[in-house]
Amino acid sequence: MNGIKVLTVKQSVFANNEARAEKLRAQLKAKKVFLINVMSSPGSGKTTMLVSLINRLKDQFRIGVMEADIDATVDSETIEKKTGVKTIQLHTAGECHLDAKMTEEGIAGFGVDGLDVVILENVGNLVCPAEFDTGAAMALVILSIPEGDDKPLKYPLMFKIATAVVFSKIDTLSVFDFDVKKAEERIAKLNPDCVCFPLSAKTGQGMDELAEYLVKEIKAYQALQQ
Amino acid sequence: MNGIKVLTVKQSVFANNEARAEKLRAQLKAKKVFLINVMSSPGSGKTTMLVSLINRLKDQFRIGVMEADIDATVDSETIEKKTGVKTIQLHTAGECHLDAKMTEEGIAGFGVDGLDVVILENVGNLVCPAEFDTGAAMALVILSIPEGDDKPLKYPLMFKIATAVVFSKIDTLSVFDFDVKKAEERIAKLNPDCVCFPLSAKTGQGMDELAEYLVKEIKAYQALQQ
Repeated sequence: MNGIKVLTVKQSVFANNEARAEKLRAQLKAKKVFLINVMSSPGSGKTTMLVSLINRLKDQFRIGVMEADIDATVDSETIEKKTGVKTIQLHTAGECHLDAKMTEEGIAGFGVDGLDVVILENVGNLVCPAEFDTGAAMALVILSIPEGDDKPLKYPLMFKIATAVVFSKIDTLSVFDFDVKKAEERIAKLNPDCVCFPLSAKTGQGMDELAEYLVKEIKAYQALQQ
Repeated sequence: MNGIKVLTVKQSVFANNEARAEKLRAQLKAKKVFLINVMSSPGSGKTTMLVSLINRLKDQFRIGVMEADIDATVDSETIEKKTGVKTIQLHTAGECHLDAKMTEEGIAGFGVDGLDVVILENVGNLVCPAEFDTGAAMALVILSIPEGDDKPLKYPLMFKIATAVVFSKIDTLSVFDFDVKKAEERIAKLNPDCVCFPLSAKTGQGMDELAEYLVKEIKAYQALQQ
């Protein structure tokens, strides 16, 4: 047994996800809570990257993490142990993604008052989470080097809706056929405003650049609500 | 432009997937067509592994490949170019998985008469395809070493329904924290009958073992219909 709080959240049966997401986004804006929706395939290194990122940001911002998974609590345990920030585990009752209602329930159960940043680790899936706006201020998509540079071609919607894309596990570039420039071009074609961050949470390469970008974005968001 | 045949298949609106899958399975049995449903995360190396596998089996069996993707035709082009077997690209119109009706439509459009084996490469997704029986005789699940040995804990249904699991990219074992024994134990706990094949399509390691296993399974299937 561990002390991780687990909450089961259920998909909305109503088809009003967009409206619900907009409402949640407005509520979070009013509270000055910056919600980041982190999406990727299973095994892209989301959790390891988040640990490294949180440890770079936690002195400047009060951070909370909501970990969504179909089952298990391994990720929230890891995050809590390695960063000390407040976490909750959301179980999706079999669902392959989070929608706005599930996020809303998660936020209510978690309690975000007093937090500056809430990181929502979505279910590991490069398809379905892209279709459901969670009400987040930012969509951070992670594509790991072992997955290949063709993923923007095969899962275009995820890269279309991304605010920023991280190329994770960049330390393994010599082992895999991944052309960073080609991946960047493919993403730019789908989404010209998207910024890309090649990095390795293992070696630390590129982590400061991502942290700096996020500091700037979070501060700009906070300034807007003054 | 290329010569790849592309077929768009649409999800069934009826909730009778199980019955439809059983019916398709019976039809394929009568035709002695062995359908393999290949499932994994995006970027696990499904296509590279299939090329290597097909080249080991194509002298013994008449093989066809149905490649399902939300978009793009890159996988079917690769398979056709590198193996010479008959392929078709199925587009899922945004859907994150194949169901029995989509598979049925794919098979009708592809034409499987005269084939011994049809390999169905499902959409890259470790969640949703596990919930929809396609009518296949075998579920082959691929877990790549970079994804991590915790995936059976986080995506249990996929490993519960697997006939066999491939641990792909085993040549990268020294770069990643992946405990093969631990992964095998986690799978065995969910699914005691499941067999696991650690292999690398790049180096060829373990490929013969998988090919031998499939030859045995396909021949047993064919013998049953005598």
